[in-house]
Order: sequence, then C-alpha cells, then structure tokens
Amino acid sequence: MKKLINISLDAMGGDSAPEIVIDGAAQAKVRHPNLKFTFSGDENIISSLINSFSNLQDSNIVHTEEFISANEKPSVALRTGKNSSMAHAINQVKSGFCDAVVSAGNTGALMAMSKLYLRPIEGISRPAIAAYFPTIIGESCMLDLGANIDCDAKNLVQFSFMGQAFASIIMGIKNPTVSLLNIGEEEQKGLDYIKEASLILSTMKDKINYKGFIEGDKIAQGETDVIVADGFTGNVALKTAEGTALLVTTYLKKALSSSFSSKIGYLFSKKSLKNFRLQMDPRKYNGAVFLGLNAIAVKSHGGTDAFGFANAISVAADMVEYEFVSNLKKKMSKVDMDSLK
Amino acid sequence: MKKLINISLDAMGGDSAPEIVIDGAAQAKVRHPNLKFTFSGDENIISSLINSFSNLQDSNIVHTEEFISANEKPSVALRTGKNSSMAHAINQVKSGFCDAVVSAGNTGALMAMSKLYLRPIEGISRPAIAAYFPTIIGESCMLDLGANIDCDAKNLVQFSFMGQAFASIIMGIKNPTVSLLNIGEEEQKGLDYIKEASLILSTMKDKINYKGFIEGDKIAQGETDVIVADGFTGNVALKTAEGTALLVTTYLKKALSSSFSSKIGYLFSKKSLKNFRLQMDPRKYNGAVFLGLNAIAVKSHGGTDAFGFANAISVAADMVEYEFVSNLKKKMSKVDMDSLK
Repeated sequence: MKKLINISLDAMGGDSAPEIVIDGAAQAKVRHPNLKFTFSGDENIISSLINSFSNLQDSNIVHTEEFISANEKPSVALRTGKNSSMAHAINQVKSGFCDAVVSAGNTGALMAMSKLYLRPIEGISRPAIAAYFPTIIGESCMLDLGANIDCDAKNLVQFSFMGQAFASIIMGIKNPTVSLLNIGEEEQKGLDYIKEASLILSTMKDKINYKGFIEGDKIAQGETDVIVADGFTGNVALKTAEGTALLVTTYLKKALSSSFSSKIGYLFSKKSLKNFRLQMDPRKYNGAVFLGLNAIAVKSHGGTDAFGFANAISVAADMVEYEFVSNLKKKMSKVDMDSLK
Repeated sequence: MKKLINISLDAMGGDSAPEIVIDGAAQAKVRHPNLKFTFSGDENIISSLINSFSNLQDSNIVHTEEFISANEKPSVALRTGKNSSMAHAINQVKSGFCDAVVSAGNTGALMAMSKLYLRPIEGISRPAIAAYFPTIIGESCMLDLGANIDCDAKNLVQFSFMGQAFASIIMGIKNPTVSLLNIGEEEQKGLDYIKEASLILSTMKDKINYKGFIEGDKIAQGETDVIVADGFTGNVALKTAEGTALLVTTYLKKALSSSFSSKIGYLFSKKSLKNFRLQMDPRKYNGAVFLGLNAIAVKSHGGTDAFGFANAISVAADMVEYEFVSNLKKKMSKVDMDSLK
C-alpha cells in the first residue's frame, strides 16, 4: 500500500468554492486512495458538503470564517489575512501536519503567503510558478507564469534550474532541454537580461541542457522540455495560448454544425472528437506549482470545476510522492546559487 | 475605374523569393486590377518569372543583385545594404514613384530602413508594427509586434492612438475600443510603465475609447478592437497564438483520422472543415503594417507562399486606397504628441 499523503486544501478559495474543492477532493481520492485531506474554511458548510462523499469521512477541518477575496492585494492579504482559510491551509504544511497545500484562491496572495510561511529554499532568491503546456508530442513545462513580473538575468537562470528539476523529477524526462522564451533564435535578438541569461546558461552546459532561445510559435511544437520566461511574458503567453485554443475550438464547433452534412459527419466523428476535446481540455493541465519553496504549494485555476481541481490535487500528490523538495535541494546544491543572487 | 495604385515589391525578400513575390503579385492583381508593380531585385530572374503572368507585363523592374539576408543585423543592413533590393524597393516610395512598399525580408532591417528613408510622422517617436488578430466575432488589431522591444508609458500611449487610427480608417470600425495587454484587469496589476500608460489614457477619454487592461486569454474573444503592448510582449503573444492554433489543428487532424468511423465523419464534414481551415489560415492574416511612418510599408511573413504574399499586398493596397497616412496625420494632429515624447 502506498504511503499516506496529507493534503491541505483551502476550502474557500476559487470562484465556486467550497463546492468544487470538496467534490474535487473526493474525485482525487478515487484516483489516489492514499490521500487524506485537511480542509480550512467554514466548518458548518464544509462538514455538510463532506457528508455526501463517503471517501472523505476521514478528513480534518480547520475552522475559520475568514477568507481572502479574489481581488485582494497580496500585501493587504499578508497583513490582514492571518486568520483566512488560505493562511490556515498553508500553515498545515508549515507545521508539518500536511505534505502539500492546494488553493484555487487569489494567486498573488497565495504566492506571498507561501513565501512568507514556507520560505524559499536556501540560495533561491525568487520562487516561480510553473505549469504544464500541451505540445504536439506531449507536454512541456513553462515558468515563470506570474510570480515575478520584473526579472533579471540571474532570476531567469535560477528559473531554468528549477524548471529542469521539475521536468526530470516530476515529468520523468531524462536530461530535459531548457530554452529561454525570446522573439528570435539568433544571439543578438531580444531584451538585454534575456541575452545575459543566455550567456550565463551557455557557460553551464555541464549542469544544464540549455538549448538557446525559443520563439512563441515553437512552444506548442514541443521543441524543448522547459520554457523559461519572466512572469509577465510567461503569463501573457500561457493565457494567449488558452484564448487561442478556445477560439479554434469555437470555430470548429460552428463549422461542424453549419450544415446538414457536417452534422452527420459530427455523429460519425463524435467519439474521436471527444478524445480531441479531452486532449485540449484546460482542466487537464490545471495545477500550477510554486517552485523554489521549502514545501509543496499548488495553485488551481480560480474558475475551474471539481474535475480540474482534482487534477491540481494530483499534481500536488505527485510532487509529494517523488519527494520534489528534497530532490530539488539535492540538485540545487550542485549549482553555485549564491553566484546567481 | 479605380485609381491606379503603384506598389513597390522587394522581389528578393523571403524564404521562397522571388517566386512567391511574383506569383503573389499576379494573384493580388486578379483581385485588384488597379495595381501596378515595381519589382526590385535581379532583373534576369524577375523578368523570366514575370513572363508566365500576362497581368504582370506592365510591371517595372529596378535591377540589383544585392539583397539583405534573413539573419543580417539591422545596423549592418543599414550600413551595407544601400544597394539591396530592400533599399531600392523602399526608395521607390521615398521618391514618390510608388505608393507603398511590401517586403517578406528581414523585419528588423525593413523597419530600420523604412524609418531612415521614409521618416516617422512628426510627433511620433517610435513607429510600430501592427497586424490583424482573428477573434471569435471577427478581427482585432494588435501592436507593437516587435519594432520596439523596450517601451515606456508614452510609447504605449502613442501606439494606442496609431492602433485606433488603423482600426477606424482601415478596418472601418467606428470609435474602436483600445486596451493595454496586461496580466490582470485590476488597476494595481502589471508592470509600472503599463500602469502609467493606463493612467495617461484614462485622462484622454475624449480622444480615445480606452477600455483598460486586457489579459491574453481575452484577445481572441474579441473583447477589444485594438490590443496594445510593447514589441516584445506583442511578438511573443502573436507567435504563441500561431503555435497554439497549429497545435489544435494538428490534434484535430489526428482525431479525425484515428478511426474508420471518424474518417467517414470527415468525408461528410469535409466542406465545413475546409471553411474552418480557411478561417484559421495564417496566410489570410499575412501583412503586418508599419504604423507611424510618412509612407506605407507592409511586412509579409518570410515563410509565406504566393497566396499569403498576395494578402500582404492587399493590405498595402487598402492603406493606399483609404489614404491612411494623411488620415493618420489628421487624427494625430488632434492629440498633443509632443507631450508624449
């Protein structure tokens, strides 16, 4: 039997919380029976919701009526949110009672609180947000997705090592390739700090499989395993990709319902198109991980449903199972991180 | 009969030049019989290619054997490329012999030469590159796509006015909405210069229909007519969108050929799917315009084919027909551009 994994959930974070959090936890536990949950939030609401799920009866509840709103500034959340469901959820990990925390709440607040309570790993100046990016040949991982909107060359180099660790430890890729997102592949192209990061990474080829620059149109082609950008650019790229995928599937839906013949065609293709939809389903890729902290914190999309939230829990469970934090520390100890501060 | 429009073409720019340039010109002339072309490049090659197209017999050729390579640095191109096909093509517009120039060559070199030879409009400190972006409800326009990778707030404000002018003069949108690309819609989100640009635009609501911030996932939903970003972010967003569209259509192709039933379904849906493909065809949106110059310059994708190049020529022809430059100047004269330098 697999080792028990304790997951701390911010029950009140997300557009449809706490319903999707509880429902998502039950779904995740069907997939991973070795999970046990601690929900932080309003005990009355949570316990009545838990009643419907037989596999959640062993869960714990940490009661609080306070929560962080979606638009709260991170600095305000830090100052006034000590008794919020998010803070309690993170503290379950800090105290060692849980192995990982998952929240669909305010991203900025979650990052700020996680940094403060869980602390960055020694040598890492800026934790980053990473997520899976679907490609023609499988999946890549991209970071930073918004934790650090203003970066310098050394930040990008640190992100590169953290992304490399995620790809090898969690995605199981041997010697993963790493690329810097840029507007051209030639050396002289792009912003100065990206060119500088590229020069630094080029001198570390014994420690990292650095491939050079990658342009936006090559991400989804799966040309590299890890795509590194500052948090502003990474966030814009990921969201633009989401919007474009929705655009294309909307066009497709319209096309397949545009004529009698195409509607018949749809009936014949229905099963295959279902697989296609599943492949494109953003819920499948839900669960952005905070890399560089002393513990595991996963951010779910705020607007996801229970299926999506269950996937974010799965990501957290994987990271616990593969002992991500201690393995990341081991990998990082081989790099002179102090020179990258 | 429509007024004759003289288009200057850099015959040697682009991956498959000069073939696609000549072929594209012939295709464009079928659509717009009032076009007349001047090709700059190797006369021998061009004249033998022109022989195959009866509607190109009235074309002019400016002979040169030099051309700018795709990877040439703009500064080197400026210094050493005075006798290149690109320089000659731009000079046909500078001299007044042609009304617009189109090239599928090196973007950086084309922008640098166009700025030097054609000069920015008075009051505009930085010309920008704009292009169409397909949306669920039609098309938007996005700028800057790479001319200015390092921008300040005032640059973004100028881009906003140039984009507004393009949307109203060329796209025919009455009182177009303008948004700044950002990583959140709330006031406090994003990089400082974007927040500053937003504050400036908010004080100019009598002159511009400024809507606030837009996130990457909302671009393709058509929530705004003009999306404004620095050239680095805009370039990454556009290319990531291109790559994602290709990813989705690749998934779709695989799905529709994955089973006997789906292949039959494909046959029934073939006509509708053809329309879908056409809607998604990047060649349809080919032709990025340089806004803010004293003349019309259009950049075609370097890897496009004749159909795509013909579309870039159509964009140039539209801009001549709607007298874009003089109308832009008129619109700009109502804004105090000196305060935005």
